[in-house]
Order: sequence, then structure tokens, then C-alpha cells
Amino acid sequence: MKNSLFEKLEALYPELVSLRRDMHMYPELSFQEVDTPRKIADYLTKLGLEVRTGVGGRGVVATLRGGKPGKTVALRADFDALPIQDEKDVPYKSRIPGVMHACGHDIHTAALLGVATVLSEAKDALAGNVVFLHQFAEEVIPGGAKPMIEDGCLEGVDAVYGAHVASEAPLGTVGTGVGYVTSACDSFDIVLYGKGGHGAMPHATIDPVVAGSQLVLNLQQIISRRIDTKYRTVLTVSSFVGGGETYNVIQDKVSLKGTVRTFEEDVRKKIEQEIALITRTTAEQAGGTAEFTLTTGYPATWNHEEDALRVKKVAGAIFGEEKVLTHEYGMGSEDFAYYLQHKPGAFFFVGGRNPELNAIYPHHHPKFDVDERSMLNIGKLFIGIVLDYLAVE
Amino acid sequence: MKNSLFEKLEALYPELVSLRRDMHMYPELSFQEVDTPRKIADYLTKLGLEVRTGVGGRGVVATLRGGKPGKTVALRADFDALPIQDEKDVPYKSRIPGVMHACGHDIHTAALLGVATVLSEAKDALAGNVVFLHQFAEEVIPGGAKPMIEDGCLEGVDAVYGAHVASEAPLGTVGTGVGYVTSACDSFDIVLYGKGGHGAMPHATIDPVVAGSQLVLNLQQIISRRIDTKYRTVLTVSSFVGGGETYNVIQDKVSLKGTVRTFEEDVRKKIEQEIALITRTTAEQAGGTAEFTLTTGYPATWNHEEDALRVKKVAGAIFGEEKVLTHEYGMGSEDFAYYLQHKPGAFFFVGGRNPELNAIYPHHHPKFDVDERSMLNIGKLFIGIVLDYLAVE
Amino acid sequence: MKNSLFEKLEALYPELVSLRRDMHMYPELSFQEVDTPRKIADYLTKLGLEVRTGVGGRGVVATLRGGKPGKTVALRADFDALPIQDEKDVPYKSRIPGVMHACGHDIHTAALLGVATVLSEAKDALAGNVVFLHQFAEEVIPGGAKPMIEDGCLEGVDAVYGAHVASEAPLGTVGTGVGYVTSACDSFDIVLYGKGGHGAMPHATIDPVVAGSQLVLNLQQIISRRIDTKYRTVLTVSSFVGGGETYNVIQDKVSLKGTVRTFEEDVRKKIEQEIALITRTTAEQAGGTAEFTLTTGYPATWNHEEDALRVKKVAGAIFGEEKVLTHEYGMGSEDFAYYLQHKPGAFFFVGGRNPELNAIYPHHHPKFDVDERSMLNIGKLFIGIVLDYLAVE
Amino acid sequence: MKNSLFEKLEALYPELVSLRRDMHMYPELSFQEVDTPRKIADYLTKLGLEVRTGVGGRGVVATLRGGKPGKTVALRADFDALPIQDEKDVPYKSRIPGVMHACGHDIHTAALLGVATVLSEAKDALAGNVVFLHQFAEEVIPGGAKPMIEDGCLEGVDAVYGAHVASEAPLGTVGTGVGYVTSACDSFDIVLYGKGGHGAMPHATIDPVVAGSQLVLNLQQIISRRIDTKYRTVLTVSSFVGGGETYNVIQDKVSLKGTVRTFEEDVRKKIEQEIALITRTTAEQAGGTAEFTLTTGYPATWNHEEDALRVKKVAGAIFGEEKVLTHEYGMGSEDFAYYLQHKPGAFFFVGGRNPELNAIYPHHHPKFDVDERSMLNIGKLFIGIVLDYLAVE
Repeated sequence: MKNSLFEKLEALYPELVSLRRDMHMYPELSFQEVDTPRKIADYLTKLGLEVRTGVGGRGVVATLRGGKPGKTVALRADFDALPIQDEKDVPYKSRIPGVMHACGHDIHTAALLGVATVLSEAKDALAGNVVFLHQFAEEVIPGGAKPMIEDGCLEGVDAVYGAHVASEAPLGTVGTGVGYVTSACDSFDIVLYGKGGHGAMPHATIDPVVAGSQLVLNLQQIISRRIDTKYRTVLTVSSFVGGGETYNVIQDKVSLKGTVRTFEEDVRKKIEQEIALITRTTAEQAGGTAEFTLTTGYPATWNHEEDALRVKKVAGAIFGEEKVLTHEYGMGSEDFAYYLQHKPGAFFFVGGRNPELNAIYPHHHPKFDVDERSMLNIGKLFIGIVLDYLAVE
Repeated sequence: MKNSLFEKLEALYPELVSLRRDMHMYPELSFQEVDTPRKIADYLTKLGLEVRTGVGGRGVVATLRGGKPGKTVALRADFDALPIQDEKDVPYKSRIPGVMHACGHDIHTAALLGVATVLSEAKDALAGNVVFLHQFAEEVIPGGAKPMIEDGCLEGVDAVYGAHVASEAPLGTVGTGVGYVTSACDSFDIVLYGKGGHGAMPHATIDPVVAGSQLVLNLQQIISRRIDTKYRTVLTVSSFVGGGETYNVIQDKVSLKGTVRTFEEDVRKKIEQEIALITRTTAEQAGGTAEFTLTTGYPATWNHEEDALRVKKVAGAIFGEEKVLTHEYGMGSEDFAYYLQHKPGAFFFVGGRNPELNAIYPHHHPKFDVDERSMLNIGKLFIGIVLDYLAVE
Repeated sequence: MKNSLFEKLEALYPELVSLRRDMHMYPELSFQEVDTPRKIADYLTKLGLEVRTGVGGRGVVATLRGGKPGKTVALRADFDALPIQDEKDVPYKSRIPGVMHACGHDIHTAALLGVATVLSEAKDALAGNVVFLHQFAEEVIPGGAKPMIEDGCLEGVDAVYGAHVASEAPLGTVGTGVGYVTSACDSFDIVLYGKGGHGAMPHATIDPVVAGSQLVLNLQQIISRRIDTKYRTVLTVSSFVGGGETYNVIQDKVSLKGTVRTFEEDVRKKIEQEIALITRTTAEQAGGTAEFTLTTGYPATWNHEEDALRVKKVAGAIFGEEKVLTHEYGMGSEDFAYYLQHKPGAFFFVGGRNPELNAIYPHHHPKFDVDERSMLNIGKLFIGIVLDYLAVE
Repeated sequence: MKNSLFEKLEALYPELVSLRRDMHMYPELSFQEVDTPRKIADYLTKLGLEVRTGVGGRGVVATLRGGKPGKTVALRADFDALPIQDEKDVPYKSRIPGVMHACGHDIHTAALLGVATVLSEAKDALAGNVVFLHQFAEEVIPGGAKPMIEDGCLEGVDAVYGAHVASEAPLGTVGTGVGYVTSACDSFDIVLYGKGGHGAMPHATIDPVVAGSQLVLNLQQIISRRIDTKYRTVLTVSSFVGGGETYNVIQDKVSLKGTVRTFEEDVRKKIEQEIALITRTTAEQAGGTAEFTLTTGYPATWNHEEDALRVKKVAGAIFGEEKVLTHEYGMGSEDFAYYLQHKPGAFFFVGGRNPELNAIYPHHHPKFDVDERSMLNIGKLFIGIVLDYLAVE
């Protein structure tokens, strides 16, 4: 059956391109999606699926009930865009100033709609159900996954899978792995308050530039000394701002910003505590005070072993073993992590790079694009996973 | 003779107030003075003095030749204003938007014109000559003193004296001292170049925030370890800017600014060399590069012993011993220093504070003002110094 | 056949205990082993094996040729002791003052002699050969493994296995893993030369305590910023010595020592280069000089996948799956690493902890001991591996 | 009268040399002086003075009452030696192993005995009294000055003067100044407690080497940022000890020692507070603890203006103006400071350097010596001061 479904999907390719380009021309920002979920819901309704809109806010969830009893597998695609000005020179360039699908969520969505079309036509043969999770607001914390889950999108679901196109991986490849595939990403702000004054009279001030510099260096020890090296962690102070045009004035304060990347939740918590301790004591040592705010981002995405191995097996069968890469997990962040905190499943990356099409720019770049045939690959993988999971021959 | 001259000066007070307020309403910025030197030259010419204009650029130098042979003593007043918006609510508020006499140079100028008037009338009795140095551009490096000296303003001069009104010292007081009375003031800029990248991949970057923080702390050792504590020195990094709104991006560079205050020229040079060494090696250690630029300001003002003691003696006689304060030299900066590198002399401070007139704000403050009677005190001191120096009874 | 061999091994237990206790009472230090290799050679010769002594210096290599053709598998046991005073209160306590088998190499040796005995009796049934590597000097760099390999001990060998008893793991357990199981361990010495002088006149000195403190903190960045967090690394400055009883004297120098633990060779090299760069520039910044010496220890031990899985399989069959632990590789160091740079194979840990026997102390502790039954477990594993590798049923 | 007294002193020179050499051969350590004060007391008693022994412990105070009423002036000489092995090759080399007059207190004592002799003979002409303060234990905190004062040695005294021979100043010179002439000298000990462990597992430890290094650098800011540069201050960490021979063991603690030099009492107190704050917060930041102990040394010696000018005047008259140096105050320490906290007076330095006699080594050096004619110079200065103070012509 798999092959006939793949043929049907390939026949749909022009429609998928059309769907994707329409989204690409009319992107909508996270938490501001209106037309996109409406169009998705219309499309899925026409397929005859049970469609629920406004899930968790703006999500669309459609259920395909197979002709025979069986398990329920969920497939997820996100559909929000980014506040970036499209600088590509293509006919489907964004029509919305300053908004752009620069991360490929349009690809995910069109591919999943294709999967829904193909599977709908084959539903009588399916022993089980498929849930299509069209998620809003992946790009902006706190994300759409969490409210969609709270609104029941995983109820009755046995496993959940998600795909992400990758402009850095060649078309035709698939990457995934057992365990962590994306990191947790938290950001922090520190304001260190000293006491300003004349640059020639430091003794009458509390110099926040010196205290801030100490703080940056003191924080280095968290990684170098305080976390077991077996855990991967990054702590970066990306911004240090105090002063400006002045040569002679000691400022009242300096502001620091940065990012923390971790995988394990207890390591994440430990680093937060250490930043808090080091910030407080550095300020106290200077005679000043400090405010430390950690903004919690998404947790790390942890692929369940059985599901990650399923993706590898299915991908190997479709694309060849040599195209299936063990994903060396990077320090990116995904709210797909939340689904896997509730249900078994796996997240995987599908290559979209093609230098001939100039699809070479990193995600979030103003010239980002991918080879649209990655939609077929995502679609085939989803179909293959569903058939494998529901044990359909 | 002194007392009769003082009486004449006091009789001139309404005119001094008028002169000062005219300058106050029409201030001119450093190196942009046009009307101010023209009015001064006109005034001095009417007194019958030998007047030279355009000295060193925009300076005005007038010579009063006494009736008898003797030494030549120079008196200096500066006449430039500051790029500050006058926020006082007084009739003589600045008419020029964004420009203001916020350091009292109008007071200095009017007082010196009064002295010229009074001494002109008594010139036959003078055994020696008086040179009036009306200087432009004290506020902005490289200042007017240097080009005026190069243009010959000190030729034939035996000693030179300068006064500065002080809003932090009560009306009626005089402060000066032997040796250093103002510091040298140099400013510096450092740009530390690393290699930007993603905040989650520091190993692929050269993090300039960390290197900049190290630099700030490394520089602390110059004062704490490398300069003999018998020399007074300050090194302040007043500004540290790298990053801004970003949490996830490691920058390409950070920029530091700061100030160095010293007295002795070899200490000044030593500190410059140490900053250069520490900046270069800190950048090299990080794998980056650095640009260090030191902008030389005025040198320290060094009062000659005989002249400083003369000012104290004269001031004590006029105002009473208890009003003569030993000036605890601060870390301010004055291009009067250049005159004293060429000729003996002294620089002194004259109180102008008066809470009843709201003359309480620090110099360079938008509400800065002083009690105008400080003009009489400056004038009397200048007259007293001239008489003492020329040994006129 | 396996079971009958195991029974024979168990019957040998009293002899193994006797062999082990003899070694325990008469331990010999690394590179000073004389009686131990002689006794081993005698024992093996009596078994009728081909025995070569003085291999690579003091090693003993014996070859058992099976009755049928096949592959050749090597088994290794080390036999050197440590410069530690035995503080146990047991009859077999070390008779040699200050020397002790505090790491269990006596256990390894006796177990391997037992294996040789058992396999010798069954040699006709073996399709292939077994090489017994009795290695000297594992405890002291550069170790005995390297010269033994250079002296041909691995010639004709197809795979090599090594065991280590572990007092921290309960008797009955086995730990190993694919890939790295022990780290590379390098040590370093840094001497930072300043210029001494009076504590009250730091400006006339180059203070090595301050420079050394900077160096310690500068080195933190290697781990926190310069190495990809996916590589496990540790850099510790364990010793900082400068001064002593003096309050008023700034020293000429300070001395630092420390350890570097890595796995990958390029990471190891990168860290060495970074220490060198940071040391040199820190010294230059201070106006001083530095000597940095890195003493290369053993490389990381890298278990080949097939061999590590064989150990797990064999161990699971003998002890039960639940007793086979995935070895979470620690930061220890072993010169077994060299064998695996030349031949496939695996290194594994065998539990020896038993609180009832007071066998609870860490390796290298003066009261270190293990349950002697760990010899049986090591022996069974070696026998099982040989049978599996040579495909003997 | 002065000249005749000087002649008498010169005639005494052989006796002074004899007295000094006797002391030099039989030096006694601070707080252990027995024979020295006994000999001094005997000598002074024979002169007919009122002698009090055991003053404040081991001090000797003698009073010479002049023939006419007048003021009372005190002269002080200290008499303790140092725990240094004499390495000079001279007939008067120390006979006491490991004990030596390496700071010239024998010179002070003999000179003052000479003054007592000479003035005793002229007592009828004196209008006032002279008190001879022979002080024990100047070298070791808390010193003898304080208990002698508490025991009344300054009762009735109007002014007090003290001399110190200086091997770094040429014979014939005298150095003193108004205000501070020696600094306060405090020493400190810091023990920073972390938590030891294996060098490869820093996350399981609290690394005291890193925390100690931070502490050293954090302390730099006290001088560079927190004390007004107009105050002379030094803070040196002279000793940092943690670890030793170990490469792989993180220690439980590190120990720091150092010295603080200040002049003003509030600056001294401020620095102590800052060290305490920085030590506490640095330890807290590391998760450790710290003990900070400051051992208070002598305060700064502050010469009263009138008295210092008297010394200069008297010295100029005796040795010539060009031999009177303004003492650039160093960072040495003297318990003469206590006398000047109670009474007006001055402390001064008398040159003793003479390369021809090999008297070139610094104080506290095993080969320290001075030209013994410095005793005459000290004596003449004391006599001159007494005559000037008591207004004897």
C-alpha cells in the first residue's frame, strides 16, 4: 500500500507547491495567525475529517478515523512565520512587509495537508486513527504546543511525530536520534545596579562596569567547574551594555543578557541557581544590587527510543540507509518537546538544501529557502511512519 | 593704592554685571567664538591698550604698559561656552538654543575687563606691565592656550595668573596650593574585535564580551600594582558596550571608553604604555585583535611655589586668612597648565556659591550659576597680585 | 564446553586465592617487577605454553595454540603494585613496607593464570589461539603496554580484551560500553616568573601571585568557551604555590600544577595549545615569563563496538542481563588504550565490592580490598569471550 | 653651649663604640631582653639620673632634672635585636647564635647613653628636664612603646623625639618631614575552605584554587576603585598556597597571606572592612567559607609640624642645609608612632651608609652594619633638639 500512497502524494506535488507558496506569500506572525488556520481548517474539512479549530487558541486539529480499529498516531506541523523582511527574489516572495516564512513552517504545513489528503483516500484500509496537529506559534515562547496539549489535542493519541525541514542538510537526507535532539533554551537578563558618579572619583561610586565584568567572568565557572562534563551545556553572555558615549561618567548600572542551553531538567535548574548565586554575591561584593530574570524557553526534545528507531527504519527503507544520519543534536530549541513529555514519539529533520536553487541560507535568514521537494520527503516519511505504527502492510 | 583701585572696581560693578550678562545671553562654543572676542577687543581698545586679535586663532591679548619700568605680569580669562541648554529661569538666560555659559567663563572675562579698566586708569603709577590674556576654547581639547602661547602671547611675560570661579565654594573664599592643582586628563577608546556567531556555539566564536570583561579587570592592576602609590592616579572604564537587544548572538566586537587622570608626565606615559600592553595581550589571548586610542587632554596644572604663596598672601590680606583654603587638588583639568609649563605663576579658585541666589549647581549643570559678586573678588585678587608682583605700594 | 570450563575454574579457586595472596604479600612497584614476572612465567611454562619473558622490558607473553586453526585472541592482566602502605588487618597484608597492591592487579593476574590453566586443558577443542599478556607497569607513565606492543606482543593477534576489578561496583556486576570507557589523562606544570620585591612596593615588582591568579581564571575559558560542549573535558589547576610564611615579600615566581582529561585526540591537542597560548600571554601581560610543560599520559580507551557488545552478550549469559551495566565512562586512565589503538577489542570492569568483607574502599586507598570471588567472574568472562570469539560451541 | 657639648660627645666616641659593640656582641630578642636593660639602667644610674626599670615590662626610663625650671623633652632609643644569624666578619660580630642587631638599635642606645652623659654634666645650665626612654621590643608587635606609655613614661613630658639610623642614607645626612614619616603596617591571613575531591570531577568539589584566584583579583579593586587616590595605600597578597605535589587532587582549602600599608586610620579601617566583605562574598559565591584574620601592626608615625621643622632647623645648623632631606615617607613601620599619638614630637632618620666600611646592606640583612660615627650624629641632633626645645642658648 505504501507505494501506491507515495504515488498519490507525488501526483499532489503541484498542489502542495501551490499551498506552500500561498502561505509563503501571506505569512502570519506567531499568536497573530488568522487566515492561515482558517485555510487549513477549510482544507481539512473538505477532506471529510473531523476538524476542531481554535485549539489552545489558534490551533487546528483534525482526526482521520481508519476503517478498522487500532492505535492513534499524531503528526504535527507548525504554521507561524517570523518578523523578518523577505529578501528573496522569487515570484512567491512574501507580500507582507517585515513578515516571512524564514524557517520552513509553510513547508511543514503543506506537506502535512498532502499527507491528510492521501491518507483520507485510504482510510478504509487503516487499522487505527491519525490525528493532524496544525500548531500555531512555535517561534515565540511560550509557544502553541503547550496550550494545544492543555486543550486536549493529545487525548487518545498513542504516539506523536514531528518533522522539520533543514536548509543545512542536503535534500534527500533524514536526521534523527534516540534521546535528546534539541536543547532547552532559556534566556536571561541581569541588571547590575551600582552608584554612578564622576569617572575621576571611583571611590565615591560603585562601579557597575567593573562589577559587570567580574560577573561575566564569575559565570564562566558554572560550565568550567560546577556542571559534570558529561552534560552538554552552554552559558553565553551575549550582551553587556553600560555607558555609551561618555568618557568621564561612571554609570548607575549595566545590563547583561544571555542564553543558557541544556538538556537535562536538573542541570537546567542547577545552572539557574548558580547564576542567581553568582549574580547576587557579585553585586553584594561590589556594594550594589542586582536583578536576575530567567525567561524559561522550551525544554529539550527527547526522542523515545522505539519511535526514533522507527523513523530511522522507515527513512532507510524509503531513501536508503546511507541517507539516514544520526542527528548530532544541536543547541536549537523546539516546543515539540512538550508533546514528547506527554506521549511517546520522535522528532526528525528532513534535508532541504539545494545550492542549484540557492536554497543554502540558514534558518531565520532573510534569503532562507528550501527545495520544495522536501515536502514530498516529509510526506512520505509521515505516511511510512503511520503505516508502520498502525502495522499496515 | 590698592584700596583706591578696589573702590574703583566696586564702582564698576554694574558695568561688570552688564558685560557678564551680555556674554551669558549670547554664548559662543569653543573654536566658534566670533562676537565675544570682537566685543572684548573693542572694549580693551577703548581703554587705550595695545590690542592684538586672532592670537593663536581667536584669542585677544592686550598689553598695559606701566609708567615706570618693571616686570610684566599676565592675567588670563577664558571666554568660551558649552553645548548645554540653559535651564535657569533668569532674565539673562541664554538666548542661544543649546549653548550656555555653564562654567563661569563669562564671569572670568567680565572680571578681567574690569581689572583692565581700573589698572588702565592707574597705569602711570605702575612699575611694569600687565598683559591681559583673553583665551578662547578652554573647554575643548586641544584648547586655546597652546596656540596662543605658540603665537607669542607669553613673550616678555614674567609670570602668569589665572582664576576660576567655583560654584561649590562659598562666595568670599579663595583656594589654591603649591604644586599640582588640577590633574592631567586623557581619554581612551578600545575596540576589541572577536568573532561573532551563535550564542549556543561559543567554541566557534571569539567571544568579545568575555575578553572585554577580562580587559576591564586586567586594567585594574595598573593602579593596584604597577604605579607607585605615592602618585595619584585614576583609571576608569566608564563605558562597555557590546550586544544590545540580542540574547542568542555573540557579537563581533565590544567597545570600551574611559578616562585616565594623572599628575606627573612619566606616570601618565607609563599608564598609557600599560593600557596598550594589557589591551594587546588580552586580545591576543582571546585570539582576537584590539584597537587602543588614547586622546591626550590637558596636562596637570602645577603652581609654582612663590606664586601660589603670593596668591595666598594677597587673598589673606583682602578676605582674611580664614577664607584662604589650601586647594585639595581634584581631578579636574585646565589648559592653564600650558602657561605654567612656560612661565612661573599660579592658578586659583574663587568661591561663587550662594544658596540664596540658587547658585548651587555644579559646573556644566543646566542650572549652573554663581553669585556675580565673585567678579569683584576675582578682580581684587588680580589687582592685588599685580601690585604685589610689581612691588607697587 | 563453557560450563565444564567454568566448573574447572571454580575448582581452581583455592589456588587462585593462594596465587593472589602471594602476590599481595610481595608486591613490586612499576618498572621494578622482578619476582612477579618470574613466578608468572614459571607458572605458564609449567602449563606447557610458549612463554616469552622480558617482553618490552618486564612483560610475560604466553601463547596457547588450539587444536584447530582459527583466530587469535589476546587477554591482558597487569601485575604492578603501588607505593602505598598497606593498612589492612588481614593475614595476606603486604610484607613490603610502603608497597601495596591497592588497585587489584594481583586479582587480574591470578584470574588470568586460572584462565590459562583451564584453557590449556581444553586446548584440543579450541579452534584458534589464545595469547596471555601479563603486563608490567600500568600505574606509571609511560606504562608497560606501549613497549610490549613495540616488542611484538600483538603480532598475529586478532582481538584483545582486558578486565579491571572495581571496588566501587558490587560483586557480580560487569560494566562496559561501546566507544570511550576511560579518558586520556595529561598533567601539566606551569612556573610563572615575575620579579620579587618588598610587599609594600608592588610597582617595583612583577607580582606572580596576581599573574598566577589571572592565569587560573583565564584557563577557565578553555572549557567554558573554547571547546565544543559535545566533547567531555576537564581542566583542573590542582596546585598553586607561591610564598609560604612570608607576609611582606613578593615572590619571584609561583608554581601551578594540574590535570587535563579528554577523549578525542584533537580536543586533547587543542587544549594543550590553548593552555600554552593563555600561559604565554598572561605572563607577557604581567611583564614576566612562564614555562609550561605538559606531560602526556595515556590516551583514552576506545572500545570497538563489536567487541564491547560481545562482552555484554557474554556477561549477560553468565551473570544475567540485569548485572550488565552500561559503563558510564569516567575520567580514569588506562594504558590498555594502546592495545585498542592497534587491534579491535574491549576493556571492561568487573565488580569486587563487598561490604561484608570490608571491601569498600576506593582504588589506591591504603585499605583497598575486593571480594576475591571477582577472580572467578573475571575468569569466566575471559573464557566466555574466548569461546565466543573463536566460535567454539 | 652647644659646641662644648658636641666636643664632650666626640670625646666620648670610644666609649660609645665600646657600648655599642658590647650590645652588638650580646643581642637580645624582643620581649626577652634581660641584660641589655640592666646594663642601661646601671649606666644611667651611675650618671646620677632618676632611673625607673621594668617600665611597661622591660623598659628603662631615666629623668634628668635641669638646674632651672622649664619644659620636659623626651628622647627615645629602642634596644631589641632580631632573630637573624650575623654573617659579618668583624670582631664585634654577634656571639649569640641566630640573634643579631640587624636594624641598628644598638647604635640608637649607645648614642642616647652618650647624650645622657653629656647632658648630665651640663644639667645645671638646663632650663627644663630631659627624659631618656630606653625602649624594649620595637621589632615585634605589639611592641614596647605602648606598654611603656601605659606605664606612665610620657607623664609630664611636653614633646618626644626619636631617631633611627638608616643604612640606605649616606653618613652625614638627616631625613624627616612634616606629617607622616612611616606607614601603618597590618598583616592578614585568609584561609579559604572549599571541598576537595578528584581533579577529574570538579563538579563534585568546591575548588579553592579557583576561588582563591578570584579572591586575589577581587582584592585588587580595593586599591583601584574603592580608596580615594589621594591616600597612599598598598595591599599585597604575598603568599598563595594550595596543593603542592599533587596533579589530580583538588584541595580542601588554600591559604593566603599579605600585608596592608596605610597612613590614615579611617583608610586603614576601610581596607580591613573591604577585605572582609570581599573575602566573605567570594567564599559564599564558591559555596565555601573563609576565615580572615587581620593582625594589627603599628599605626603610621605622624610628625607634628613644629617639631619636624625644629629637627630640620637643628640638623641644618649642624650638618648644613644640603644634608637635610625631606623624608619621602616610605612604607616602613615604627611603634614610635604611639608616642606621637600622645605628645607632640618628631621622628627622624640619620644616615649610616658607608661603602668603605661595607656598611651598605639593607636593614634586617645578615650583613647589616652602619658607620658608627652615626652615633655622634644622632647624639648631636638629640642635644641640639634639647637645647632648642628648652631654649637654652
